[in-house]
Amino acid sequence: MSYAKQMLDTYPRDFNVDASVLAAAIDALSDCAQACTACADDCLSEEMVAELTKCIRMCLDCADICTATLRVASRQTEYDANVTRPQLAACVAVCRSCGDECERHAEMHEHCRVCAEACRRCEQACNDLLAAMK
Amino acid sequence: MSYAKQMLDTYPRDFNVDASVLAAAIDALSDCAQACTACADDCLSEEMVAELTKCIRMCLDCADICTATLRVASRQTEYDANVTRPQLAACVAVCRSCGDECERHAEMHEHCRVCAEACRRCEQACNDLLAAMK
Amino acid sequence: MSYAKQMLDTYPRDFNVDASVLAAAIDALSDCAQACTACADDCLSEEMVAELTKCIRMCLDCADICTATLRVASRQTEYDANVTRPQLAACVAVCRSCGDECERHAEMHEHCRVCAEACRRCEQACNDLLAAMK
Amino acid sequence: MSYAKQMLDTYPRDFNVDASVLAAAIDALSDCAQACTACADDCLSEEMVAELTKCIRMCLDCADICTATLRVASRQTEYDANVTRPQLAACVAVCRSCGDECERHAEMHEHCRVCAEACRRCEQACNDLLAAMK
Repeated sequence: MSYAKQMLDTYPRDFNVDASVLAAAIDALSDCAQACTACADDCLSEEMVAELTKCIRMCLDCADICTATLRVASRQTEYDANVTRPQLAACVAVCRSCGDECERHAEMHEHCRVCAEACRRCEQACNDLLAAMK
Repeated sequence: MSYAKQMLDTYPRDFNVDASVLAAAIDALSDCAQACTACADDCLSEEMVAELTKCIRMCLDCADICTATLRVASRQTEYDANVTRPQLAACVAVCRSCGDECERHAEMHEHCRVCAEACRRCEQACNDLLAAMK
Repeated sequence: MSYAKQMLDTYPRDFNVDASVLAAAIDALSDCAQACTACADDCLSEEMVAELTKCIRMCLDCADICTATLRVASRQTEYDANVTRPQLAACVAVCRSCGDECERHAEMHEHCRVCAEACRRCEQACNDLLAAMK
Repeated sequence: MSYAKQMLDTYPRDFNVDASVLAAAIDALSDCAQACTACADDCLSEEMVAELTKCIRMCLDCADICTATLRVASRQTEYDANVTRPQLAACVAVCRSCGDECERHAEMHEHCRVCAEACRRCEQACNDLLAAMK
């Protein structure tokens, strides 16, 4: 289990979003960033790498965007919805594109199947957080 | 001078955005990410740090989002507007918020004045890139 | 549960380190990066922030170094010990310094206690991985 | 020109390293991180991508490690040599490995030639900083 929920529970001020929804998003972002980093690398080791360049590029983008979103979402001090909301929206977008691309290779490459699952869960968790945020 | 333009000029395929506009955005993103990292740290060393917590938080978010956007913008392989456009939009948003916050302290803290300038230039360069992208 | 072990199990080639040790390090790095990002932000919201600037700086460094190390450790393609080993050593060093600093505030700030635990576990997991690597 | 030197000149406390050497390292790290991100992507768009997988992996590692090192080096508050020195050493190591790999393809791929140059300059700048640091 990660420390996300514990860290939120020890935050010294109030924050106005459900801590469980926020912790779930943080964990999903963290898991998706790692899965995408690994999937890009897995694709790079496939013999048919030339057919997986779109998947690699999507996974690299998704890892970078999830990592940035994870950090923004982990901060509560002087929360600014004008920053967090568009970043979450960008993350939803890349998780959808990357999940779609990985799904195309899911039957042939098990790592793409797992990564697509990580992307779908992260997209959902970010949408849940957007809905829960004031 | 950075390598952004040279790297674009040696890209092995075509890409359909003006290379100078793209290179200018990449450089502005890179400069803004560094300036915000430094400004957060400068604020942390001010005696009145307790009054600068919003500025620190904004600068940390802006550095993270600019770094992710810089990486996405630096990739041309299998370009997907559905990913790049929302990420650029999120970056414009954080540059505006961070630039506004830094500007509030610009008269008192020279590092905030410089950082505000970096944010304004980056916001403009991202908007220019959004306008130039098909 | 994260996807680290699943992603390693679906890697298309062989790699010569124990997958469980590697997956444990990846998870510890991911957890520590998030805990440190959150702890820096928690400290920023404390009234006594001026006394916590060293803790904030250590946490920011630790988050950045863990994130980079996590990505390097997640890649198996064309593994180069000359790159991975010094990066793991740098990560061990920052986890120790950050863990020591957080521990100093552990009795007063619960978030520092949790973060110190994340740093100690990550330091141990990186040392275990260094020992397991050929 | 980046803001690195300006940000150092406006830092509110003293720091005991030559500001020009530090600013040069920060700029070289920033340039190298971007060049490596672009070179990995350039390689991904080459027809012979299957022969460039080692170069892609090295460039991804180098970009991640330079980005983390850039952030650590940009911070002066409560400087801890036990953290900064090993991270700079890890960065020197990856710049050497990545520069060597890119150089192997420099005659065939112009982007690898440019990226090798960025890696060599960054390796030198990090070594210069290590020598200048107390």
